[in-house]
Amino acid sequence: MKALEEKIIREGTVLPGDVLKVGSFLNQQVDTVFLKEMAKETARLFADKPITKVLTVEASGIAFATAVAIELGVPMVFAKKHPSANVSGAQYAAPVYSFTHKTTYMISVSRDYLTPNDKVLVTDDFLANGNALKGLISIVEQAGATIAGCCAEIEKGFQGGGDELRKQGYQVESLAIVESMGDGEITFRR
Amino acid sequence: MKALEEKIIREGTVLPGDVLKVGSFLNQQVDTVFLKEMAKETARLFADKPITKVLTVEASGIAFATAVAIELGVPMVFAKKHPSANVSGAQYAAPVYSFTHKTTYMISVSRDYLTPNDKVLVTDDFLANGNALKGLISIVEQAGATIAGCCAEIEKGFQGGGDELRKQGYQVESLAIVESMGDGEITFRR
Repeated sequence: MKALEEKIIREGTVLPGDVLKVGSFLNQQVDTVFLKEMAKETARLFADKPITKVLTVEASGIAFATAVAIELGVPMVFAKKHPSANVSGAQYAAPVYSFTHKTTYMISVSRDYLTPNDKVLVTDDFLANGNALKGLISIVEQAGATIAGCCAEIEKGFQGGGDELRKQGYQVESLAIVESMGDGEITFRR
Repeated sequence: MKALEEKIIREGTVLPGDVLKVGSFLNQQVDTVFLKEMAKETARLFADKPITKVLTVEASGIAFATAVAIELGVPMVFAKKHPSANVSGAQYAAPVYSFTHKTTYMISVSRDYLTPNDKVLVTDDFLANGNALKGLISIVEQAGATIAGCCAEIEKGFQGGGDELRKQGYQVESLAIVESMGDGEITFRR
């Protein structure tokens, strides 16, 4: 999505450790006019798939997942990272190693919110080594539901997670794929 | 909002400790068709206010804040509850006591995302004792910005936070106000 690539160049910042900071428009402060455009494009990319639910993980994935689910007219479900007094009943759970936080945490979804009839679009704001999406895919499989596809706002192509999932046969769509960002220079996959 | 009251009666569950579980449609699994209706109603309630930003706190407030911000055509900003490798630069911060988790945590927003020119609608999924909204109000005041109003999807009227904020002069709009929920029987404020 050309407009996203231009916005990343204009407003993104490369921090040490291959961190791409896009908090000004994508994940801490969200440009919702642009978010709606990204959600429409995502819905278009999966227009041939009968999606019944959008699944993401808290917290920075929720805004994108909500906007995509609004476009598709289906429920949005998010996996929790922490146990909560408000979560009761049985859960599907999977471990996820976080590249950002250098730690492994459990993500979980109540069994009430995924059924074997669901066709699930798995989403996140970033796709790097793919660990969050792999955890979400595991949860969908535990529920006996079907993966309709995977999508992310920004993929770090050089970290390989997206291509690994493509090789496994999943339809993976990222609205922008960063191929390299050495020395603060961001280049995209063509 | 009558439709929300009906949905709470139909799909909500009262758990011990005055916990109202609405995860099936409001905060873990989000009915996005209904969410859009709630966002439209919220935009209508604040139609006379020149809002420039919607502010909430992660994680369960993000879906509602995103939908409201999409309706208003303004950015959505969320305060973080945990330090993150992706957060750099100076922050506005405030302590918040969580009724749900029985603990005090810090919430923070990068100084880049709030300016003295902002007119901020402060939102959350639940308004109980008002601690999260008070923390967000403190952050808005630290930025020298203006509070346009406060809103929540569900207010627990019997916990007093909403009325306290109304007494302080804020416009507080909740789409449903639960007046009591003893013995699992939910009654709403008229």
